[in-house]
Amino acid sequence: MELKKPYLLFLGDAADQLAAKVAQGIKTWHPEYCVGQFRLPACNADCDLEDLSIAAAAQAGAKTLVIGVANRGGIISDEWIGVLVEALESGLDIAAGLHNKLNDIPELVACAQKHGRQLFDVRYPSQAYPVANGKKRAGKRLLTVGTDCSVGKMYTSLAIEKEAQKQGLNADFRATGQTGILICGEGVSADCVVADFIAGAIETIAPANSDDHWDIIEGQGSLFHPSFAGVTTGLIHGSQADALVLCHEPTRTHMRGVPDYSLPDIETCMQANLATASLTNPKVKFVGISVNTSQLEEQQALDYMAQLEAEFGLPVVDPFRQGVGRIVEQLAEL
Amino acid sequence: MELKKPYLLFLGDAADQLAAKVAQGIKTWHPEYCVGQFRLPACNADCDLEDLSIAAAAQAGAKTLVIGVANRGGIISDEWIGVLVEALESGLDIAAGLHNKLNDIPELVACAQKHGRQLFDVRYPSQAYPVANGKKRAGKRLLTVGTDCSVGKMYTSLAIEKEAQKQGLNADFRATGQTGILICGEGVSADCVVADFIAGAIETIAPANSDDHWDIIEGQGSLFHPSFAGVTTGLIHGSQADALVLCHEPTRTHMRGVPDYSLPDIETCMQANLATASLTNPKVKFVGISVNTSQLEEQQALDYMAQLEAEFGLPVVDPFRQGVGRIVEQLAEL
Repeated sequence: MELKKPYLLFLGDAADQLAAKVAQGIKTWHPEYCVGQFRLPACNADCDLEDLSIAAAAQAGAKTLVIGVANRGGIISDEWIGVLVEALESGLDIAAGLHNKLNDIPELVACAQKHGRQLFDVRYPSQAYPVANGKKRAGKRLLTVGTDCSVGKMYTSLAIEKEAQKQGLNADFRATGQTGILICGEGVSADCVVADFIAGAIETIAPANSDDHWDIIEGQGSLFHPSFAGVTTGLIHGSQADALVLCHEPTRTHMRGVPDYSLPDIETCMQANLATASLTNPKVKFVGISVNTSQLEEQQALDYMAQLEAEFGLPVVDPFRQGVGRIVEQLAEL
Repeated sequence: MELKKPYLLFLGDAADQLAAKVAQGIKTWHPEYCVGQFRLPACNADCDLEDLSIAAAAQAGAKTLVIGVANRGGIISDEWIGVLVEALESGLDIAAGLHNKLNDIPELVACAQKHGRQLFDVRYPSQAYPVANGKKRAGKRLLTVGTDCSVGKMYTSLAIEKEAQKQGLNADFRATGQTGILICGEGVSADCVVADFIAGAIETIAPANSDDHWDIIEGQGSLFHPSFAGVTTGLIHGSQADALVLCHEPTRTHMRGVPDYSLPDIETCMQANLATASLTNPKVKFVGISVNTSQLEEQQALDYMAQLEAEFGLPVVDPFRQGVGRIVEQLAEL
């Protein structure tokens, strides 16, 4: 699954800026993929791109309309359909990461077929993946892991890709969730793969590469999340990571969605991830800790990170506040 | 998914007895479910049941024809179709655990529809499972785990169910693979569930129960298998096991299907399983070790088991040689 670029970002009738966070993510990380945005009259979000009609976007070279908005229930509303049909008729593919599928809407399917266009439901794997073989493959890999879900693994991975390229490393972000796929244009939604093939899917999207190449693989879930640790385990094994970065949100009072489960302490979490990862790469090591300090005051955040850094002897950063330069510097030594 | 009993076992044109091992498993564990067997002229297997025509089986009360044979490539051959159509016309459902689906054969689908019968492809989940909630639920659970795949987890689990019932415990086998499902008539094929729902599927098939009830849950894979550990992890978390039984095959030289991976030592394997299982049940403990000693001479087997028993202080048995009575005795104390 590879989306054609550049994109027209569809913000639809986003109720607020947060509802358009997928579009905002694409704009933040890859502004060069975006020819403009399309907003319906009721839209309250703005990604600071030129507002283009479908015709103007096609004229400007847009190849894919990306649905960058999440509305309540993940529903594709009737109001959107007219715009999407116009996009298909104008020669654009459509991509979405919603729970509800574009490919389940007969009107869109018929229209895409008629005009030779594609509908990408990036949440759902469009290919069969093999069972993982566990064989050592060339190239190097970094994987972000977390104390919990939604602690900044995607953001950290994207920041590491960008910084690594800036430092002259040969590096590619590898997406494992729908937002990451829409941002970089390819990948696999690991939690939607059939269970037998989780590790095999990751081996496929982060294949053998040149010895100096780094895959920066987006992690999912947490080994300590009772709902999703199976996904995390398969992802870790398939990654054969040389380097791990632990992601953490220090103010969370329990694991996301499961109030009975508290977060693991950092040391326990790192040991468990090393134990799991060492099955497929015995040389794995942590190269940094990424903390989402958005809920802390600046001095609190700095104190907290200094304390972690003293305890673990690793670079500890908030990618948003300080960038990930000090983590990426570790990679040159591996 | 619940199959109607009793069964007619379809042995087809099984090349040898091993090709009919699913049928043999059903006959071994639940002879009371079987009204007879159906064999094509080329069949070289025999489950020691009465050979019945479809008409005679229907007459004898058979409700489901179970395909108990695996042929090369999992293909449903043309030679079988005539028999399967006759079974549907005679009022039987059909169940199979093959890779290829009954529901992908238009002739069978049309015939089943016409006669109001069902086609069960037990390998493929027929319902949506929830995301696991990790909430402690009533009742007790035993889970078999393994040093590797295919080391006797299903056999051990079925033996424990039978022995527990014999010792007066309230116990039910919970199937997590296609053969187990066909043997007991319900369950979920854990490795075929979408990755996000592995643990949730297990919470569903082993739900809250009375305090003195034991679910005996069939394990899958191994935490040390680089292809399948994600399935194993989700299964362990969803089980919330009170008791674990480690299954092992002592002559295996590497993990099944991956020659680069050696088996974990027993102590390491037990510690890893306890660490993973304790997330959803901190009181989990091992109650025994089940060794498949079929590749050892009797004295070798006895010596090996005595050595393990001295080392770990747990009952060590080969279910086939000694039964699992000593393991089940441990459950009364939990």
